[in-house]
Amino acid sequence: MTEAALAIEPTDPVLETDFAKEMVRQMRAIDTYGTYDDWPLEKILEPFVLTKEKKREIPVIGDPDEIVIARVKAFYNAISAMIEKECKLMAVPMLNLTHEGFGRVLITVGKLVVMDRTLRDVHRFGFPTLGKMKDEADKILSVALEIIGKHSDVAGM
Amino acid sequence: MTEAALAIEPTDPVLETDFAKEMVRQMRAIDTYGTYDDWPLEKILEPFVLTKEKKREIPVIGDPDEIVIARVKAFYNAISAMIEKECKLMAVPMLNLTHEGFGRVLITVGKLVVMDRTLRDVHRFGFPTLGKMKDEADKILSVALEIIGKHSDVAGM
Repeated sequence: MTEAALAIEPTDPVLETDFAKEMVRQMRAIDTYGTYDDWPLEKILEPFVLTKEKKREIPVIGDPDEIVIARVKAFYNAISAMIEKECKLMAVPMLNLTHEGFGRVLITVGKLVVMDRTLRDVHRFGFPTLGKMKDEADKILSVALEIIGKHSDVAGM
Repeated sequence: MTEAALAIEPTDPVLETDFAKEMVRQMRAIDTYGTYDDWPLEKILEPFVLTKEKKREIPVIGDPDEIVIARVKAFYNAISAMIEKECKLMAVPMLNLTHEGFGRVLITVGKLVVMDRTLRDVHRFGFPTLGKMKDEADKILSVALEIIGKHSDVAGM
């Protein structure tokens, strides 16, 4: 896949948010060879944005490769890190995928499942825009924090 | 590995328990070709019992193969089925392993994590005797039911 120009504008205000910074941190954590060291943020996060054009290039049916799986993990790791930051309790993501890209991902805090999702078509993982990615993460985060607030005893177990 | 004679005695009373019956049911569920159809119970469960002699034959370091992983799943599926039977709520196991046989397994009921374990050396998965396997399962079951009793609201979510 070629690098689609402007999937994320360098001036996109979302790049300034804690979520985007955490995503970049997650991506750098798996960047063993320092490839991203002198990349701008929008280039590091670019693979997460699947514009219509980019999505069209990916076959409907396919197996997710290691790189896509690492990206999915980075996304849920970032959300876990944000949950942790807010509630001061450890949040642990767990991803389970079949070879065909179906699976389940959950995040636990103590003995509480704060997010539980079915994944489909993981080889096409991505969001229409960076803003939509952040919205999705924010939604998961706020639901998680609400559950933790209600069941803090279980979250603290 | 050759079939170690008498890893389980055909007269072992544990074979009569609900746990052993559930284990056999789980093993039959993955027995696509009906290989086990005319096997006695003790032969179907035999691979779960790693006598000292059998364990010695397995290298200390190794990657778990599909068959061992299926066995680990059968064990935690059986426990989940027993939890379900007792509390009338769906119990879902989730197993996550690296190629090297390290990982994590958990069982959730609703939004409650009723079991959470780290796995090691999965290629050597097994129990000294059938009785010890049942003890282990019973222990997990009773802890799970206790947590469910205490946090039935979260388990029912």
